[in-house]
Amino acid sequence: MRHSEQICERYQMAVEIIAKRWTTLIIKQLMVGPQRFSELAAQLEVVSDRVLSERLKELEHADIISRRVIPEPPIRVEYTLTDKGRALQPIISEIEAWSQTWITLNPAIELVALPDEASGTNNSGCDEDSVSAA
Amino acid sequence: MRHSEQICERYQMAVEIIAKRWTTLIIKQLMVGPQRFSELAAQLEVVSDRVLSERLKELEHADIISRRVIPEPPIRVEYTLTDKGRALQPIISEIEAWSQTWITLNPAIELVALPDEASGTNNSGCDEDSVSAA
Repeated sequence: MRHSEQICERYQMAVEIIAKRWTTLIIKQLMVGPQRFSELAAQLEVVSDRVLSERLKELEHADIISRRVIPEPPIRVEYTLTDKGRALQPIISEIEAWSQTWITLNPAIELVALPDEASGTNNSGCDEDSVSAA
Repeated sequence: MRHSEQICERYQMAVEIIAKRWTTLIIKQLMVGPQRFSELAAQLEVVSDRVLSERLKELEHADIISRRVIPEPPIRVEYTLTDKGRALQPIISEIEAWSQTWITLNPAIELVALPDEASGTNNSGCDEDSVSAA
């Protein structure tokens, strides 16, 4: 494997972590401090519990967050960013700054009236699978 | 659409540009200066001409690069980063720094002997569709 391919591989693995829908929202929420599943779910109201649960498992697997079971009743599960996860902050800030400056949303998308109770699924184009085109 | 969803949408559109395989390599190559297709192809030897051509079209569509036809014979086509494209530099630098610090490649992947002429396709796991797991 050439040097450039190793760089490419590392970069690609990094970028795929943050490119996944909701991942960054979850990480940003945990920047505030450790949180339980129910707290995360309440804050990230656009994410379904199923998707939140999947993303948390993936982030734990990637060592971005750690999961701690607090054994006193009522038993609670708390999620915390690892050092590796906290180190994503500058990347997220740069992407936010760039996208605020350079990405213009389609006015038709911004103005569309979205049903609040859309048949149990997401109520915007911002779900984990579909991607709106510019 | 709620404010948080608009932010999410912008962020997602930004991150999907840089998350696509080869996109960042192409952008980095163009940071050096305007280049012709053949020059890019020679530098990015791990990318097939077909994929390079697709990525250049996508980046042009996203206003990250501009394409200029130089009409004097021999007719040449030159690609240049736009201001929007150049503004991606801090994001790319932060992702590179993070991935160098935090991503450890699987030693089995690093040490594997890769055939140089692998049946006309890519000769590493670093192709545009497949993604290696950590």
